[in-house]
Amino acid sequence: MQSGSVGFVTPQSMRFEEPLGLASGARIADYELCYETYGSLNAARDNAVLICHALNASHHVAGRYADRPEQVGWWDNMVGPGRPVDTRRFFVIGVNNLGSCFGSTGPMSTSPTTGRPYGASFPVVTVEDWVDAQARLADRLGIRRFAAVMGGSLGAMQALSWTIQYPERIGHCVAIAITPRLSAQNIAFNDVARAAIHSDPDFHGGDYYSKGVVPKAGLRVARMIGHITYLSDDAMAEKFGRSLRTPDYAFGYGAEFEVESYLRYQGDKFSEYFDANTYLLITRALDYFDPAAAHGNDLSEALAAARARFLVVSFTSDWRFSPERSREIVKALLDNRRDVSYAEIDAPHGHDAFLLDDPRYHALVRAYFDGVFERL
Amino acid sequence: MQSGSVGFVTPQSMRFEEPLGLASGARIADYELCYETYGSLNAARDNAVLICHALNASHHVAGRYADRPEQVGWWDNMVGPGRPVDTRRFFVIGVNNLGSCFGSTGPMSTSPTTGRPYGASFPVVTVEDWVDAQARLADRLGIRRFAAVMGGSLGAMQALSWTIQYPERIGHCVAIAITPRLSAQNIAFNDVARAAIHSDPDFHGGDYYSKGVVPKAGLRVARMIGHITYLSDDAMAEKFGRSLRTPDYAFGYGAEFEVESYLRYQGDKFSEYFDANTYLLITRALDYFDPAAAHGNDLSEALAAARARFLVVSFTSDWRFSPERSREIVKALLDNRRDVSYAEIDAPHGHDAFLLDDPRYHALVRAYFDGVFERL
Repeated sequence: MQSGSVGFVTPQSMRFEEPLGLASGARIADYELCYETYGSLNAARDNAVLICHALNASHHVAGRYADRPEQVGWWDNMVGPGRPVDTRRFFVIGVNNLGSCFGSTGPMSTSPTTGRPYGASFPVVTVEDWVDAQARLADRLGIRRFAAVMGGSLGAMQALSWTIQYPERIGHCVAIAITPRLSAQNIAFNDVARAAIHSDPDFHGGDYYSKGVVPKAGLRVARMIGHITYLSDDAMAEKFGRSLRTPDYAFGYGAEFEVESYLRYQGDKFSEYFDANTYLLITRALDYFDPAAAHGNDLSEALAAARARFLVVSFTSDWRFSPERSREIVKALLDNRRDVSYAEIDAPHGHDAFLLDDPRYHALVRAYFDGVFERL
Repeated sequence: MQSGSVGFVTPQSMRFEEPLGLASGARIADYELCYETYGSLNAARDNAVLICHALNASHHVAGRYADRPEQVGWWDNMVGPGRPVDTRRFFVIGVNNLGSCFGSTGPMSTSPTTGRPYGASFPVVTVEDWVDAQARLADRLGIRRFAAVMGGSLGAMQALSWTIQYPERIGHCVAIAITPRLSAQNIAFNDVARAAIHSDPDFHGGDYYSKGVVPKAGLRVARMIGHITYLSDDAMAEKFGRSLRTPDYAFGYGAEFEVESYLRYQGDKFSEYFDANTYLLITRALDYFDPAAAHGNDLSEALAAARARFLVVSFTSDWRFSPERSREIVKALLDNRRDVSYAEIDAPHGHDAFLLDDPRYHALVRAYFDGVFERL
């Protein structure tokens, strides 16, 4: 099968005037969501697939922008004509979540109350809030029910939450590299990343926009920490080992090891485009996600309402959200006699594997989507 | 067997006037080493045991100070009368390494050249440099040969290096929670910690002493990162889980989770007493340690000169320096037909396990030391 890119795409935006009540009790008076679509909604309106993004991604899932052709969508290898999520059959939607920094309303946006950027006053949003906002977008696009909601990592949490919050509106949940809740270690890494941002003097308590600065140094450290947790020890050993960029030790603190150079570069790049308040907010949404908590920590009970069919995929070398965590979800679904396919892909790349085009992984997702309509 | 503390101890200090040549090519003109001793050197002068410290510890291995009784030695559970390293039989020495911040000459010390603190001008020292300095201390104490040199983590690297640098001067090498070289992931964590310190505006390029400030925020983040890597995921789950300190989510960035509170407290405490330049320097010494590098990355060749007997201990849940890394050393020693005892302790605490008094681990070290004289 010939597979290709969706080609040039154009982001769209939709404004919502009805206030959105949040899990925190706060409300967002009105807001905008940026999104992209690929493929066409069929007449029955039953071929829509929602792709949810993780920490640092956006609505730009596939394709390129005509004016910035280097900006390829973050899951371009997964979504396109002939790709595992085939845009010749599916109408695929990517949406930038509330609180993010790629066009949807977030901390950088102007607060209608003050006329200045929200900054620190932007409310902490949750996975459940995002799903609610996504459901409203679906309403406006005339999609009563998604053929599938899909995501990796934090995106997979949203897909899972769809099955609990809107069980009648989702046919299939495709959850990749997921955990049903962060571990203490996961939370710890998030908290250190936030500490780095909070202690950057350019953070100004979150209201840095008016100061003409951004807390780049803090964001850089935060990203470096995060990046380590996305890669496996083995993948880093394979990619960098102890290779030096200098002929020998320089007895200083420059980027002597290749791995230092790589991480610093990633951190620098990230700090150029990502918003620090968004980083705080999205890591907190990660910390808070825990659907079992409202059910006495019983995940099976939390998933009792789910009606969707499930594909759950984990990666052996993912030490951030290990296969064990996926298996907790699979077990809870089986307790509820849900239809669930589960695969543990023997891949060396760690958590990041969900973004890579491992052929077994992609073949599996392709095969699953091939059968989506038969089992809607 | 009744076991106890060595009781009140008094640190000592020794000044060295002969310059010490370093691996970097730099020299330290004259310097001081702080040390403590427990037990008595016997007439044959063959019962001395050197204990080497890791990143954040010091010469204060055992006992208490009369004026600061809360400051218990960092390996007090291991060293004392009736303890695994029994001070009724052994003359035990703890020494603060060059470049550290607990009394030995380091970045906080006054440079004889400038009359001001060394700060950034203090040279980067290596594990090999520390061993050289320790050997000089041994000379001055009249110890030609140690019955054993022992350490955990970075301390174990020094013990291992003794067997290569001074093969005739060490009877037994007791290396706990060791690796023969840092992995790319290990280096990455160190580099992020250093990035946090370097980006603290109170760092002033390392010359903060004269500014009346210390880069506490950076040091705090560095310590938080380090701390996560010392504990296992399971140990953190067991100790903290997702327990909240608040009745419910507060939708903010305070220390809501117990694990956040713990980590922040540890970071704060550390930043009160540890020197940032020392943190940089010691993490670099960790990065650089790689005895195989000078032998075409052949660890067996690197250890060919060793004459000591070995006890190597690893802990199953140590993901920083995993048992696999210890096994590399054991294999290299067996290649050289060295006498090596190896134990993998099934302990849940991660890298930090080497400091805890797991009964199987302590029984093993005790049994090994019981037989030290028979196999000297």
